[in-house]
Amino acid sequence: MLLGRVAGTVVSTQKDPGLVGQRFLVVRQIDVDGQETGGYVVANDAVGAGLGEVVLYAAGSSARQTELTKGKACDAVIMAIVDSWEIGGHEVYHKNPPPSGSED
Amino acid sequence: MLLGRVAGTVVSTQKDPGLVGQRFLVVRQIDVDGQETGGYVVANDAVGAGLGEVVLYAAGSSARQTELTKGKACDAVIMAIVDSWEIGGHEVYHKNPPPSGSED
Amino acid sequence: MLLGRVAGTVVSTQKDPGLVGQRFLVVRQIDVDGQETGGYVVANDAVGAGLGEVVLYAAGSSARQTELTKGKACDAVIMAIVDSWEIGGHEVYHKNPPPSGSED
Amino acid sequence: MLLGRVAGTVVSTQKDPGLVGQRFLVVRQIDVDGQETGGYVVANDAVGAGLGEVVLYAAGSSARQTELTKGKACDAVIMAIVDSWEIGGHEVYHKNPPPSGSED
Amino acid sequence: MLLGRVAGTVVSTQKDPGLVGQRFLVVRQIDVDGQETGGYVVANDAVGAGLGEVVLYAAGSSARQTELTKGKACDAVIMAIVDSWEIGGHEVYHKNPPPSGSED
Repeated sequence: MLLGRVAGTVVSTQKDPGLVGQRFLVVRQIDVDGQETGGYVVANDAVGAGLGEVVLYAAGSSARQTELTKGKACDAVIMAIVDSWEIGGHEVYHKNPPPSGSED
Repeated sequence: MLLGRVAGTVVSTQKDPGLVGQRFLVVRQIDVDGQETGGYVVANDAVGAGLGEVVLYAAGSSARQTELTKGKACDAVIMAIVDSWEIGGHEVYHKNPPPSGSED
Repeated sequence: MLLGRVAGTVVSTQKDPGLVGQRFLVVRQIDVDGQETGGYVVANDAVGAGLGEVVLYAAGSSARQTELTKGKACDAVIMAIVDSWEIGGHEVYHKNPPPSGSED
Repeated sequence: MLLGRVAGTVVSTQKDPGLVGQRFLVVRQIDVDGQETGGYVVANDAVGAGLGEVVLYAAGSSARQTELTKGKACDAVIMAIVDSWEIGGHEVYHKNPPPSGSED
Repeated sequence: MLLGRVAGTVVSTQKDPGLVGQRFLVVRQIDVDGQETGGYVVANDAVGAGLGEVVLYAAGSSARQTELTKGKACDAVIMAIVDSWEIGGHEVYHKNPPPSGSED
């Protein structure tokens, strides 16, 4: 899994039938220092993530191992909202105070 | 999934039997600002995408989760035509007015 | 799928039993302008591709979706020989006249 | 598989139901000389790895081939703790003396 | 598949039960000219490869398509020992005389 920040939304009306009703979120990848790497992915959302939240996403066939995405043409899914993480015992990120919208 | 713009078509008569009747579209990858990244993929098309349209495509085994591509030697499929997307609440791209052919 | 040009052959006598009888072709990756990118892959060949031919190959589990490669320890397969492709309505490559051997 | 060093932990309370009870470890990738490459992955842990330990992790669908991760939205798993490795007959790394916490 | 040269061995006693008895080999990636690219992978070995030998390895779920690795948390397997390869009709590498240990 990789860390990312929910940056936006993609809207599509003409899509594969299996994907009807799915949200497509733009997730900017971040490194373990919380910095954006420049990469992104468009992911389905299995956990109700909001704009600006830091999340974990899984890619490939593992992205289809949620109730939402099983058997779907989906190769990236947000499967966790991140509360905090620490590196070497030091907290790098904590969700509180909650991010006030996008931070980029 | 990644964003891309349909840039062209690949023609092949000699191909794996499972792929007969499939269209092969050249999709240039674009970033979340709508700029081409230099990367591309050749994808099958599950949604009837046209030249110049912005699309989402899924890769890997997830590309085989459409009626069109199930069980096929296909590792990339266009599974959605993009109407619009926004980043941080600001619209970056909107399909209307429709793109007049390829924009590269 | 990605575009590539068949550049050579790998010979192996000591290999996994499932791969006996398979050809291993060296495929140089090319971009949508027909230029080599520097990357390569060694692929099995489901379509009888010849040296110098431009092909499409599929990677990952999708490479096992041909009769030849089903259930094999194969992560790349040539699944189409390319006749031509066009970008933005302009033909970039056409197989005729056929390439006279490797062009690198 | 790739070599990595366990650098930290990600905490998430809101996650896909299948992932409840799983630990998410931050693993910094290292090269065959034991140097960090700058890359990372967040992995589930099938072997009880501790902070600072050098591990092997598997990615993609192979990350779901442990009891812990079967059928889960998990695309990276620590499947071995590394005791030592050698290159060309020379030992590059040995776990003893055990690493005293994170070495970065 | 990609070409690589067996460079060393990783030892692990604490690992996923499914991997007990497996060898973990360090494989340095090489390009079609036989030069090391700087990349590496740790792979299981389905063909009895020795130190210094040039091999082909398969990655991802295809790495689990050998008797040795079926159902294992393994994402890379050596599935062929390379005797020789040629590019454009010219032999680039031939195993005889056999490599005398690691060549890096």
